[in-house]
Amino acid sequence: MSRLLYRSLPRQALRPLVRAQFATGTRSYAAASPAPQFDWTDPLGSKNLLTADELAISETAERYCQEHLLPRVLQAYRDEHYDPQILREMGELGLLGATIDGYGCAGVSSVAGALITRAVERVDSGYRSSMSVQSSLVMGAIYDFGSAEQKERYLPEMAQGKITGAFGLTEPNHGSDPGSMESTARQHPQKPGYYLLNGSKTWITNSPIADVLVVWAKLQDTGKIRGFLVDRKQCPPGTLETPPIKNKTGLRASITGMIHLQDCPVPQENMFPEIEGLKGPFTCLNSARYGIALGTMGALEDCIARARTYALERKQFKGNPIAKYQLVQKKLADAATDAAYGVLAAIQVGRLKDQGKATPEMISMVKRQNCDRALHNARVLQEIFGGNAVSDEYGIGRHVANLYVTQTYEGQSDIHSLILGRAITGIQAFV
Amino acid sequence: MSRLLYRSLPRQALRPLVRAQFATGTRSYAAASPAPQFDWTDPLGSKNLLTADELAISETAERYCQEHLLPRVLQAYRDEHYDPQILREMGELGLLGATIDGYGCAGVSSVAGALITRAVERVDSGYRSSMSVQSSLVMGAIYDFGSAEQKERYLPEMAQGKITGAFGLTEPNHGSDPGSMESTARQHPQKPGYYLLNGSKTWITNSPIADVLVVWAKLQDTGKIRGFLVDRKQCPPGTLETPPIKNKTGLRASITGMIHLQDCPVPQENMFPEIEGLKGPFTCLNSARYGIALGTMGALEDCIARARTYALERKQFKGNPIAKYQLVQKKLADAATDAAYGVLAAIQVGRLKDQGKATPEMISMVKRQNCDRALHNARVLQEIFGGNAVSDEYGIGRHVANLYVTQTYEGQSDIHSLILGRAITGIQAFV
Amino acid sequence: MSRLLYRSLPRQALRPLVRAQFATGTRSYAAASPAPQFDWTDPLGSKNLLTADELAISETAERYCQEHLLPRVLQAYRDEHYDPQILREMGELGLLGATIDGYGCAGVSSVAGALITRAVERVDSGYRSSMSVQSSLVMGAIYDFGSAEQKERYLPEMAQGKITGAFGLTEPNHGSDPGSMESTARQHPQKPGYYLLNGSKTWITNSPIADVLVVWAKLQDTGKIRGFLVDRKQCPPGTLETPPIKNKTGLRASITGMIHLQDCPVPQENMFPEIEGLKGPFTCLNSARYGIALGTMGALEDCIARARTYALERKQFKGNPIAKYQLVQKKLADAATDAAYGVLAAIQVGRLKDQGKATPEMISMVKRQNCDRALHNARVLQEIFGGNAVSDEYGIGRHVANLYVTQTYEGQSDIHSLILGRAITGIQAFV
Amino acid sequence: MSRLLYRSLPRQALRPLVRAQFATGTRSYAAASPAPQFDWTDPLGSKNLLTADELAISETAERYCQEHLLPRVLQAYRDEHYDPQILREMGELGLLGATIDGYGCAGVSSVAGALITRAVERVDSGYRSSMSVQSSLVMGAIYDFGSAEQKERYLPEMAQGKITGAFGLTEPNHGSDPGSMESTARQHPQKPGYYLLNGSKTWITNSPIADVLVVWAKLQDTGKIRGFLVDRKQCPPGTLETPPIKNKTGLRASITGMIHLQDCPVPQENMFPEIEGLKGPFTCLNSARYGIALGTMGALEDCIARARTYALERKQFKGNPIAKYQLVQKKLADAATDAAYGVLAAIQVGRLKDQGKATPEMISMVKRQNCDRALHNARVLQEIFGGNAVSDEYGIGRHVANLYVTQTYEGQSDIHSLILGRAITGIQAFV
Repeated sequence: MSRLLYRSLPRQALRPLVRAQFATGTRSYAAASPAPQFDWTDPLGSKNLLTADELAISETAERYCQEHLLPRVLQAYRDEHYDPQILREMGELGLLGATIDGYGCAGVSSVAGALITRAVERVDSGYRSSMSVQSSLVMGAIYDFGSAEQKERYLPEMAQGKITGAFGLTEPNHGSDPGSMESTARQHPQKPGYYLLNGSKTWITNSPIADVLVVWAKLQDTGKIRGFLVDRKQCPPGTLETPPIKNKTGLRASITGMIHLQDCPVPQENMFPEIEGLKGPFTCLNSARYGIALGTMGALEDCIARARTYALERKQFKGNPIAKYQLVQKKLADAATDAAYGVLAAIQVGRLKDQGKATPEMISMVKRQNCDRALHNARVLQEIFGGNAVSDEYGIGRHVANLYVTQTYEGQSDIHSLILGRAITGIQAFV
Repeated sequence: MSRLLYRSLPRQALRPLVRAQFATGTRSYAAASPAPQFDWTDPLGSKNLLTADELAISETAERYCQEHLLPRVLQAYRDEHYDPQILREMGELGLLGATIDGYGCAGVSSVAGALITRAVERVDSGYRSSMSVQSSLVMGAIYDFGSAEQKERYLPEMAQGKITGAFGLTEPNHGSDPGSMESTARQHPQKPGYYLLNGSKTWITNSPIADVLVVWAKLQDTGKIRGFLVDRKQCPPGTLETPPIKNKTGLRASITGMIHLQDCPVPQENMFPEIEGLKGPFTCLNSARYGIALGTMGALEDCIARARTYALERKQFKGNPIAKYQLVQKKLADAATDAAYGVLAAIQVGRLKDQGKATPEMISMVKRQNCDRALHNARVLQEIFGGNAVSDEYGIGRHVANLYVTQTYEGQSDIHSLILGRAITGIQAFV
Repeated sequence: MSRLLYRSLPRQALRPLVRAQFATGTRSYAAASPAPQFDWTDPLGSKNLLTADELAISETAERYCQEHLLPRVLQAYRDEHYDPQILREMGELGLLGATIDGYGCAGVSSVAGALITRAVERVDSGYRSSMSVQSSLVMGAIYDFGSAEQKERYLPEMAQGKITGAFGLTEPNHGSDPGSMESTARQHPQKPGYYLLNGSKTWITNSPIADVLVVWAKLQDTGKIRGFLVDRKQCPPGTLETPPIKNKTGLRASITGMIHLQDCPVPQENMFPEIEGLKGPFTCLNSARYGIALGTMGALEDCIARARTYALERKQFKGNPIAKYQLVQKKLADAATDAAYGVLAAIQVGRLKDQGKATPEMISMVKRQNCDRALHNARVLQEIFGGNAVSDEYGIGRHVANLYVTQTYEGQSDIHSLILGRAITGIQAFV
Repeated sequence: MSRLLYRSLPRQALRPLVRAQFATGTRSYAAASPAPQFDWTDPLGSKNLLTADELAISETAERYCQEHLLPRVLQAYRDEHYDPQILREMGELGLLGATIDGYGCAGVSSVAGALITRAVERVDSGYRSSMSVQSSLVMGAIYDFGSAEQKERYLPEMAQGKITGAFGLTEPNHGSDPGSMESTARQHPQKPGYYLLNGSKTWITNSPIADVLVVWAKLQDTGKIRGFLVDRKQCPPGTLETPPIKNKTGLRASITGMIHLQDCPVPQENMFPEIEGLKGPFTCLNSARYGIALGTMGALEDCIARARTYALERKQFKGNPIAKYQLVQKKLADAATDAAYGVLAAIQVGRLKDQGKATPEMISMVKRQNCDRALHNARVLQEIFGGNAVSDEYGIGRHVANLYVTQTYEGQSDIHSLILGRAITGIQAFV
């Protein structure tokens, strides 16, 4: 495992996460306990499926997130503010591009990579989104499709969070159907070895602060989609604009924007050399989707922990904690079940991924189901808070709003249903 | 019917509402059309159940709301700003306390009153909440339980929106179980004819801007709950504080706060003379809940209209409007059905209310079901917008966030389930 | 109102239904009760919407069904036996074709007609199906589309249950899409004034015992669908076969079969004179569907009554009736709400129907929703019985199995969703 | 692994199952395929978690079930007939008590044992129930709690299916709360070394044909629950009656009955020597519940396979297979997802069970969730068949009816919710 991951961690970083609320239910299996105890934070014992390294990575990431991200998120969400320093911190801990081998990356398993997303998303899906874009969509794209020179130029600094990436696929009129994109790249009429990019992308996480933007556009010569590394500092004024989208109803702790390209000149060597068509972006999305599948389970687990605490502390009717009421217990039981199932399914797909046995449909399945169930249960758990959920300090409303977004991005849930339907029946039903 | 309602309306106010989006589906039944047409804005023809007066009131209210409230709501919601002028405008149109007879009120039917709430909530549940508190909870309390002098003092100016009211029942530790409230009133030790009020109320709509606050507290002498009209201008400094609650996750276009009473002296003549126990606040809640039942249908209908428009305009996959896809159509069909059913049920209960045949359980049923279904369907319709729902300009996210709150206040949904369960089985299951 | 309905009823038939179980919750509003009481059997006071005649018809029908159908149904369902005598009895009471004016029919309102279906379906959906076919599909078709001679020949005896009808539309390969039917009618090559009918129909209620079968087939000359009255006693041997379908998983108390026509000669005067295309069968279905909408509410109400009784009598854990548990109460509350809403919606559509204001989409809406909710709630209520639901004597399993069928026939639920989707969006999504 | 399991299998038994319908989607991963293919019969690649032995056992069991059980089940279900020969056949294949080590049992892993239940339940939950009672409840009880002599006397012949067992815990008035049982055992007043058993048990699978019945009763001396092996051939006439329960609404291919004990003398050596209280029966239930968790996934998988085949073959609207419609594809996608997740969760719990790390709550979780989801999805898939589901030959209605029962027995779903709720919150909410 990754020496890099631990490189910058002080000694005590390796100690198990000490997090009062979440740790409450944890039982140590170390003791020679004759009767195993149920652990509501891991109801089906998924920890037994993890290697020691993976457990250590998970604990490191959880500790960082609880200690350094959690205290920031309330204000960040209120203000729609994203602190770019966060990627630096993550970089120092080796959390960025963690599944990449080499280039200063940790080279951990897919499951370990997803345990990191779970830790981050336990705090906030926006923080996780920003990291996913950096790690899976941009670093992943460069690693999978970039030239040797592109990899050397970007990956090491991206791994340290010194360069921020964004991924431009979705357009204002083309979300679920990226194949119809309108962005174009054509040979620069005057400047040989350059392309001119034109078009607009929207809902692009990190775009306003990104140093390098992976932009997918149709090459005029061939009509085929190609990927370009648009390096902000190389763009002449007025050719690249990345205005933020404000007043979002979710993911407010991440920064989202548009990308407007107007005759933006991009040198030929910034194009991914070989990959053509939708295979490129879809490969990247596949990785990101996998991270979301386990990531959203972190958000759901946090909702469970918060709702459980609230239910134990809130007393109504003769001084009973509301945790005593059947209708409350059922909500908790349902949510814990879906979280436990979702974690197992995500781990399984990660294992198959590393064995070369995972298919895109498997990832559609766990992305869809885990986002759907995380959102559904978060909403049901929110009911436990009654009117108090309206206070943002309880955090539950933020998770609910965030999880809606996870359900829609990187393949809206219904689109994944149709992907699965096609895989099951052999017939497409998109149109 | 109410001459008052029309008093201040210019002539053309009576013309039917001209609202492009919403009116699209409306068909005139006036013509001797041989084949009736389906109207998606009123799928089960509820208009046939309304009197001409009720239709006119509804159109007036809808027009005001679309023309004067809709343009303000986006910014108000973003800024958590409530414009106190709104109650004045509503007062001028006769929309406040509209079901009250006399005191400058319109004296319309319960159904007409609820049609007003529907019109307001079609724009925003927060605006409706503010109005409901003024009309049903405060004016209603004074009308039902106030002395002749209290009625004369407050009702006429409240009807004009010159005096703003708030209703203090819920306490930080007592939401679903108000009978355990901790607020107290005791005889003033020095000042005969005065009570000293102590205690805290929370989640009080309008409290920061209210001129008069109905506060329910336990009278120390008897241990019984009594209602007091706390008149802000009579309160010595430091005895009444009404800090706003900011950073709400819903109902951000209304203003919500706490009420802190510290030895606040209230003259005896400001106590409701006879009503004792929970019967007082529950009677008021009953009226407000009824308004919510039809009100939330307005919000749901707006979600349907917005989702339909979006689905017709948004094209994906070979240029098809997404309205063509089965999964989208089912969402619209389900929502339209629940809206149509909910409107009929609310009208029915309103009719029975005016005939003296409505029971509190009926109101629990329509309040619970309509809030639940409005929320559920709004969430499902939100999926039609995909990632674009994250933009607050589509309005759907605002309705979703608001409707969550309606489900929790004035009887959280599960509490109403248990009220109904008790009514059906004869056995209480609260504890 | 219908003198005919009462014609054959003994005097005491007009007394209110005395049915212990169902009547438990009924409260008399006759007394000058100051506080109205909640009636769990009619939670939203739908009785207030009925005329005195309708109430009387309902009570008559309910009494007949509880006294004469209920005792037969358990054994009939076990044995898949349908007693043809039942239609005779219904005929004597004036329950058949009740909304038809003249021809010995009662001429009651659409709501009254549907109250009859509700009474019958409170016992069993199969009994109601048999009656619906007789009344709405066959008598309705003849009344709406038949020649004067056809009406005179069939309606009076059908109203008395002396002639049994069946309605042949669905074919083995064409259920949701009847427009593609394969049955044909062509001019008899030798016998002028006769058509030869060929084709197969399936899932035809009453077909094995029917005396007259309305068969829809494509006229070879025009390619248009036409309706024929196939009179069994006129058919030469071997030209009409109506084998029963046995081992059904639902509706076992009704008889269902196929219709096989092999060069079956039908005289020209047995063809409906004018109606062409799908308008004919769809008009009939519309009437039948309306009856189903209120009918299934009867089945649901019976499930509620049975579950409530069971929950009050079954004691678990310290001797508590399980009715005391929150999870049980919620099931009852949900079901009662859906029943109450469904009844109101069905009454509303009936009223509009009689005013010429009902559209087919309205009927799609109430048919779909009421069948869906009846089925859903019946299943949830079944859980209250735990393992005991496996005993057919509790009746709940029978309702569950029956209600599945109601959801699929006369427009499967998803098809109605698409009908509604088309009405809302203006775009069809069937293919 | 089990030589015994293979003992009686002919050579070719080890070849992979050849089952046309189910195998359609299976892809061989053996070839060095560059791109893995999605397999709708195992969407998340659970086969990768199985050992070669487990795969072989699964294939053997699947083949037997498809070849020898499937052809019988339609008629058996119609007739409520259970062929006692089935247990013999299962015994010959080593399928009974397969997880028991010794006594002629196969000694396979918990997962392997559950793969057998999955294979059987793919055909019918009734067949699986009969086997579960024999293997988990009776053989399991004897193995866990029996004396050496009891084990030797019963286990070998039970493993061969020569002795049939039944398990008597549930009583007419005590289902979810067995601790309140009324059955008693007292010292025989005349015959030393004998107990007299009295009481009634109901819903006892296999009871009418059982040779040995495990009966739990309260020992009068101590008030503690003890277990007795009631051996039918030792019971004097009139002291043991086991009438069948007929006309069941589900599980009709298994035989169910009551147990009536009237002063039934049972020798002391037939009492389990040490186990006292509910721990005994709950331990057995735990094993059986585990088998149900994976078993029901077999039934669900069969529903998916049947619905998929139907959807591909059934054409409606312009000759499209209905598999092309979005509403149909979503149903298939949802069901396949729940099946895939449920299989993974059950395998995980089986692994933990064999490592001594499984808790009863884990088993509650997978039993509850898998039964609930199997039932829910089976019902939704049934809609794909439309009216044709009413024909029992499609098999879907049988699965739906069966799965309802699995949801209620061995812990009704709500009871498991409360078990989980207690485990999560530390507070019991049963009363």
